[in-house]
Amino acid sequence: MEKFNASLPLDKRMWAEDIRGSQAYAKALVKAGILTQEEAETIVGGLDKVASEWASGTFVVKAGDEDIHTANERRLTELVGAVGGKLHTGRSRNDQVATDTRLWLFAALTEVRGSLQELIAVATNRAEAEADVLMPGFTHLQQAQTVRWGHWLMSHASAWQRDDMRLRDLLPRVATLPLGSGALAGNPFLVDRQFIARELGMVGGVCPNSMDAVSDRDFVAESLFFAALHLVHLSRWAEDLIIYSSGLFGFVQCSDAYATGSSLMPQKKNPDALELIRGKAGKLQGNLAGVMAVLKGTPTTYNKDFQEAWELMFDSVDAAHDCIRIATGVLSTLSINPDRMMKGLSADMLATDLAEYLVRKGVPFRETHHVSGAAVKMAEDTGVPLSSLSVAQLQSIHPLFGDDVVKVWDFSASADARDTEGGASKRSLLEQVAKMRAYLAAEQVAQQ
Amino acid sequence: MEKFNASLPLDKRMWAEDIRGSQAYAKALVKAGILTQEEAETIVGGLDKVASEWASGTFVVKAGDEDIHTANERRLTELVGAVGGKLHTGRSRNDQVATDTRLWLFAALTEVRGSLQELIAVATNRAEAEADVLMPGFTHLQQAQTVRWGHWLMSHASAWQRDDMRLRDLLPRVATLPLGSGALAGNPFLVDRQFIARELGMVGGVCPNSMDAVSDRDFVAESLFFAALHLVHLSRWAEDLIIYSSGLFGFVQCSDAYATGSSLMPQKKNPDALELIRGKAGKLQGNLAGVMAVLKGTPTTYNKDFQEAWELMFDSVDAAHDCIRIATGVLSTLSINPDRMMKGLSADMLATDLAEYLVRKGVPFRETHHVSGAAVKMAEDTGVPLSSLSVAQLQSIHPLFGDDVVKVWDFSASADARDTEGGASKRSLLEQVAKMRAYLAAEQVAQQ
Amino acid sequence: MEKFNASLPLDKRMWAEDIRGSQAYAKALVKAGILTQEEAETIVGGLDKVASEWASGTFVVKAGDEDIHTANERRLTELVGAVGGKLHTGRSRNDQVATDTRLWLFAALTEVRGSLQELIAVATNRAEAEADVLMPGFTHLQQAQTVRWGHWLMSHASAWQRDDMRLRDLLPRVATLPLGSGALAGNPFLVDRQFIARELGMVGGVCPNSMDAVSDRDFVAESLFFAALHLVHLSRWAEDLIIYSSGLFGFVQCSDAYATGSSLMPQKKNPDALELIRGKAGKLQGNLAGVMAVLKGTPTTYNKDFQEAWELMFDSVDAAHDCIRIATGVLSTLSINPDRMMKGLSADMLATDLAEYLVRKGVPFRETHHVSGAAVKMAEDTGVPLSSLSVAQLQSIHPLFGDDVVKVWDFSASADARDTEGGASKRSLLEQVAKMRAYLAAEQVAQQ
Amino acid sequence: MEKFNASLPLDKRMWAEDIRGSQAYAKALVKAGILTQEEAETIVGGLDKVASEWASGTFVVKAGDEDIHTANERRLTELVGAVGGKLHTGRSRNDQVATDTRLWLFAALTEVRGSLQELIAVATNRAEAEADVLMPGFTHLQQAQTVRWGHWLMSHASAWQRDDMRLRDLLPRVATLPLGSGALAGNPFLVDRQFIARELGMVGGVCPNSMDAVSDRDFVAESLFFAALHLVHLSRWAEDLIIYSSGLFGFVQCSDAYATGSSLMPQKKNPDALELIRGKAGKLQGNLAGVMAVLKGTPTTYNKDFQEAWELMFDSVDAAHDCIRIATGVLSTLSINPDRMMKGLSADMLATDLAEYLVRKGVPFRETHHVSGAAVKMAEDTGVPLSSLSVAQLQSIHPLFGDDVVKVWDFSASADARDTEGGASKRSLLEQVAKMRAYLAAEQVAQQ
Repeated sequence: MEKFNASLPLDKRMWAEDIRGSQAYAKALVKAGILTQEEAETIVGGLDKVASEWASGTFVVKAGDEDIHTANERRLTELVGAVGGKLHTGRSRNDQVATDTRLWLFAALTEVRGSLQELIAVATNRAEAEADVLMPGFTHLQQAQTVRWGHWLMSHASAWQRDDMRLRDLLPRVATLPLGSGALAGNPFLVDRQFIARELGMVGGVCPNSMDAVSDRDFVAESLFFAALHLVHLSRWAEDLIIYSSGLFGFVQCSDAYATGSSLMPQKKNPDALELIRGKAGKLQGNLAGVMAVLKGTPTTYNKDFQEAWELMFDSVDAAHDCIRIATGVLSTLSINPDRMMKGLSADMLATDLAEYLVRKGVPFRETHHVSGAAVKMAEDTGVPLSSLSVAQLQSIHPLFGDDVVKVWDFSASADARDTEGGASKRSLLEQVAKMRAYLAAEQVAQQ
Repeated sequence: MEKFNASLPLDKRMWAEDIRGSQAYAKALVKAGILTQEEAETIVGGLDKVASEWASGTFVVKAGDEDIHTANERRLTELVGAVGGKLHTGRSRNDQVATDTRLWLFAALTEVRGSLQELIAVATNRAEAEADVLMPGFTHLQQAQTVRWGHWLMSHASAWQRDDMRLRDLLPRVATLPLGSGALAGNPFLVDRQFIARELGMVGGVCPNSMDAVSDRDFVAESLFFAALHLVHLSRWAEDLIIYSSGLFGFVQCSDAYATGSSLMPQKKNPDALELIRGKAGKLQGNLAGVMAVLKGTPTTYNKDFQEAWELMFDSVDAAHDCIRIATGVLSTLSINPDRMMKGLSADMLATDLAEYLVRKGVPFRETHHVSGAAVKMAEDTGVPLSSLSVAQLQSIHPLFGDDVVKVWDFSASADARDTEGGASKRSLLEQVAKMRAYLAAEQVAQQ
Repeated sequence: MEKFNASLPLDKRMWAEDIRGSQAYAKALVKAGILTQEEAETIVGGLDKVASEWASGTFVVKAGDEDIHTANERRLTELVGAVGGKLHTGRSRNDQVATDTRLWLFAALTEVRGSLQELIAVATNRAEAEADVLMPGFTHLQQAQTVRWGHWLMSHASAWQRDDMRLRDLLPRVATLPLGSGALAGNPFLVDRQFIARELGMVGGVCPNSMDAVSDRDFVAESLFFAALHLVHLSRWAEDLIIYSSGLFGFVQCSDAYATGSSLMPQKKNPDALELIRGKAGKLQGNLAGVMAVLKGTPTTYNKDFQEAWELMFDSVDAAHDCIRIATGVLSTLSINPDRMMKGLSADMLATDLAEYLVRKGVPFRETHHVSGAAVKMAEDTGVPLSSLSVAQLQSIHPLFGDDVVKVWDFSASADARDTEGGASKRSLLEQVAKMRAYLAAEQVAQQ
Repeated sequence: MEKFNASLPLDKRMWAEDIRGSQAYAKALVKAGILTQEEAETIVGGLDKVASEWASGTFVVKAGDEDIHTANERRLTELVGAVGGKLHTGRSRNDQVATDTRLWLFAALTEVRGSLQELIAVATNRAEAEADVLMPGFTHLQQAQTVRWGHWLMSHASAWQRDDMRLRDLLPRVATLPLGSGALAGNPFLVDRQFIARELGMVGGVCPNSMDAVSDRDFVAESLFFAALHLVHLSRWAEDLIIYSSGLFGFVQCSDAYATGSSLMPQKKNPDALELIRGKAGKLQGNLAGVMAVLKGTPTTYNKDFQEAWELMFDSVDAAHDCIRIATGVLSTLSINPDRMMKGLSADMLATDLAEYLVRKGVPFRETHHVSGAAVKMAEDTGVPLSSLSVAQLQSIHPLFGDDVVKVWDFSASADARDTEGGASKRSLLEQVAKMRAYLAAEQVAQQ
């Protein structure tokens, strides 16, 4: 039971945050008249020593250290004597653990945000550098229209940008201070919670209600949702690349660092890194489902069930961070094969352009769609590519086809025709690149 | 198969949004030179007629109307002739359906936000009106410390406020325009997407990349997460009330409108409304898990799998809205029993106050905790309430106990002692009430 | 609230089961001495009339019919008078609704099982008919070794067979009788529950404990797990076919009945049916997560939360049944393109065979793996297919290569070499077909 | 990346199974003519040494040991020389890892089953020993009817028994042999898979199709479903006990070994063990959701995503086993307070008995329900317990009430009246106990 109950193996990861929180609290106790300035200095200094023991790996866990709070206070008291016993005045492990967790998560997610922005930057740079590479765009995994490789890259970067925005919005909800809420009913020594919040860099201010403060794990759930949805995006990106690197596509190839061989088949080179990302995405959905189920099944205020939330939090944050870095590595070392991409472009992907040709001559789109469909069928029936139909053949379907229809059979022009904001043209692509860079520049500043 | 494939039974719910989107698109086609002003007016007018048929329930679905887009265009063309066939120029159902869905969801969630703020207001008003009612606060469902009934109310209102903030933050991500992205590669007729976004009230601007625009269902996932987490909060609130209304607690009683009887046991009065909310919370977690699993398993751009996202979206938004209104009804008609709440306060809940008494006399908290624990044990061993221990008995445990210790045995004073920001004191409670009202006032303005 | 609370819109689907259960209960009340034989006949006859009203669509729901039980008893009493009021003696809606649900689910899942066996039979028949068609087998979506199209078919049929076994095992746990458990404490009129179980075809006997009987929804959860896992299998099968029908693979093509076109791109033919199956798989995972979360968050015995379990049950069972039938349709009409499959076989897929060639000459496998890897590299470096390396070139890597190495370059022989039980040889494939038919024959008998 | 990819930290837990599988495979290679008897003995002996290194903690992991299979073969070859390189002949890590996992899981779940049966036995023994203790039975957490404490115990034991049955049914699906399936296409050296299956105690026989064999992780999903549903049961049981041990109920008290104190409130004794179980239930639902999402998103045969399934498997199996043992400890040391349980019985819980009194005098139940309801209301209106209404007062409601109505006011008789199979009577309870013991005896035999 003791093993089952003990949280130290998990929560010792937050030793630094536990100490920072205690040091800020000691200062607040001075203002509240519970500690003298001297006592507080003794405590803060003692906690610095405890911190250096953790940092150097010399902290010795003892029997009875059931969690990081108990362990740190026990060691503090060993180091500074009875005055250490004053630190916990008016505080409960309920408000303490919530504070530690929020501090840890705020720091961890800020780092994740840095890595995520790095990934976006890598994709953006490749999109610009390889802006001239054409490839088939797919819907329903069927060849649909000509796009640019860089446009595909920016489509994923755009999804990651939304994740970055979500992260930006949720960070202040993480960095909100529970300390000063006691076990559930508040603090009887009138500690100045706004002061503590400032000391700890809690940009979201203080939790407004003490019962809610010890009970609230929304910030964990919201962070796990961020992680799970971001992994959905990485997984879809990975899925694309797994398919594109399959022998029958051959669009891309993972570098050796991110692929592995087979114990049986000497010729195999498997995109393991991408598959692991895809697998992690599933796991992180489970973590989200798990934390939601844990939270739902509890009555008001603190319940021990919340201990489960940590493990899920650590696991999801670590996995998300790992996956972002792996994805960055895969993307920056991926080789592409523009020839195979071009071979993936088939003439019938220009059927829409053929319809648009007639639209520009005034035919209602609905009619041009049927005309173009008839041309596709004629090509199929006669066993030639759509682009090999003669003008006469096309005119037999609709009289407005003219000699200039040959201009339709140009994949690059097809992509460049889609020149609205966000479209597949080169101009639009470079505009997307520029806007993304502006976003990254603006948000990087904001982050500091 | 047709039945399985048809989305009309689901998406016809978005008829109004489909028409609004088409009207804005027709105007953009004028600017793009595809439609004359006259043609656009004909189309817009025709769409108004289609809308009035839907509104009056006279729209007749025909075989072949496989979705709302097809149905509306078919009817439009019947009403205005071949010019109707120009409306879909450069557009795809892929960008159209994403636009409709976002318009619908933006409107629906804005309504949900109104109801949610109403619920918060009801709780806040009760918290003020019943600020003097004391009750036991629980942790681990064990009596812990004295709090106020209004403090408990505000603890839940605080959680709901976070939900309201999350909703505020996600609404612009819902109201972002995909239209003009075509099937995946963009629009070749250079429609002005910023113009369309303004026409449709898309406060989040335009989707930056066409492939991402038709592929992105984040706004559904994020909305379902909002709904699921809000329901976690309503479920925990309901769970509290189910326990508080159990005969052995008897703190509260649901009004007859929200309770039901038993077919077998004539004396029963069951809090069905609260249990249904708790059940819906589970279902909405499933909806979230479902949409995440759907999204993960798809390659890039549009895939038919997304059709599942709608049903889940409609279900979660409707259920969340219903639950909020039911909760508002339950809360505004709930009767409370202050006597039973007072009976739930036991003397040993003042053990912390006893420790704090000594802290105020300079004893380190860690020691006072042990002293108070010894007093609790003495009371238990001698079979009397903690508050019945004599000063002499207490002094036998610690010499600093004096006659003024009797002041500790006052539940109301105990709550009022926790007078920090967010604490259980009456002053703090009224401050919480005032701040919440200020928040609601500010956000209601912002909402319009 | 009434709308929120009312279960009739959902549970009226179980009208037939509600009536069957009541008729069996009326007979048990005769044995228990509560009803005379004549009264029971009146009730049973009256219920037959109620049933015929439901069957013919003439049953009129009235205000106050809050669920199917109330509606049926109300109508019964209208038809037969006060004696109808004796039917509910000793019974509660708690044991009644559990009985209805189990009867409905048992019948529905038995039908599902029939459809599932039909799907397996279709796959098995194709596997035999097309046993000579070779295709690349993939791991990690990379070409790995030569297999047969029929072997791929049987790999999915084997997964579906496990689903069928799971269904077989869970059916008796569905068909277990709660009736006679009252609201929670049992039945005071000593009805013979074994008799009722036999009357209703409850092959799993009676629920052993009355509190558990009204509380147990395991049978719903287990059925939803069956459905979710089966859909995982159908989704993976669909995913394979979506990839195989992509233009760059071209192995298969869905018939027009199961594919749809694009509103923008005239050439498109999208495998919508397969994508919908893949999407439903996600939704059914959500339904499972939902029901688990609902059940977890309830205390002992009956709680109104269980109402949510129905909607999830109906939805999952319907969706699973639809998907099985759609899959059967897709599979029986799918056209295959053996030429494209053959083109997907590349010489380096025989690298393992090359290693095995040396194993048969006594070289340890670990060494042969390296040798074969070196040959793959030599082919790559010299820009020729592996099979074009000369014997001399191969001998430069390992001296034991002889002229007979040319026999290695035969895809069909490669598949047939794997002639163990379950392997890719034709003999093994036909053996798998025969065993599957024997299974289906045995289980079909057992089912009746 | 290496860290991310390496599975050894996880899969080394299966070292014993990996070695057992390899030893059986070596014997099969003799029969297949690949190894001589002498070579096989060398390999088997070498593997014994490797095993003893693992067992004694002296196995040294080296760089390049990317998984347990590679590590063991590397060490084997160091110990026995080049012949070690023959072991992997015809085998792939794909069929090897599936075999190891199944062997590990079969052993682990068999142990879990033993612990689960022990838990059921503890509950059954208490149910018999404390069969005379009455308590209020709840529905909707409202006092409903009188039951026995032992009846409540058996209600949970009955749910656990279903879990045990599910475990029994799924074990053969775990213990099915993939070995001999190679990477995906089967084994070219015709190893006798039936022989290997017998050697390894694979009671479910051999996997019928090689592609399915390396692809199938159903056994993990099904085991995780078992664990998640069992934890739902433990969680609901824990939830009951958490409520029953709350001060205002006071029915039960956890022993000190399974409760913990508060860092702030000296009087607190929190049922942490029960809350941890409730929390784990949420986590295990997440694990199930995670594995389902992982499996859904993969194409045919082996994909690296499956690596995630292990971590989830180890976590769920360990957590389920821990929770079962904790629950056994809690239950066997729990103290009950029959007086508080009796105080929880209120007279209006006999309202159904009052109705039944009239039923026995021939009044239709539906009428008696109204009569009893009127009596409840009269008691409420006159402010007395239902049982204090005089016979005259009752007769004013219905003339058939007689002096013998006083016999209704007996809680024990009320429970004993429900004497059908599974009811709350003492006779029925002892019958349940006897049947459960017979089940355990029969299944324990079957297990060996």
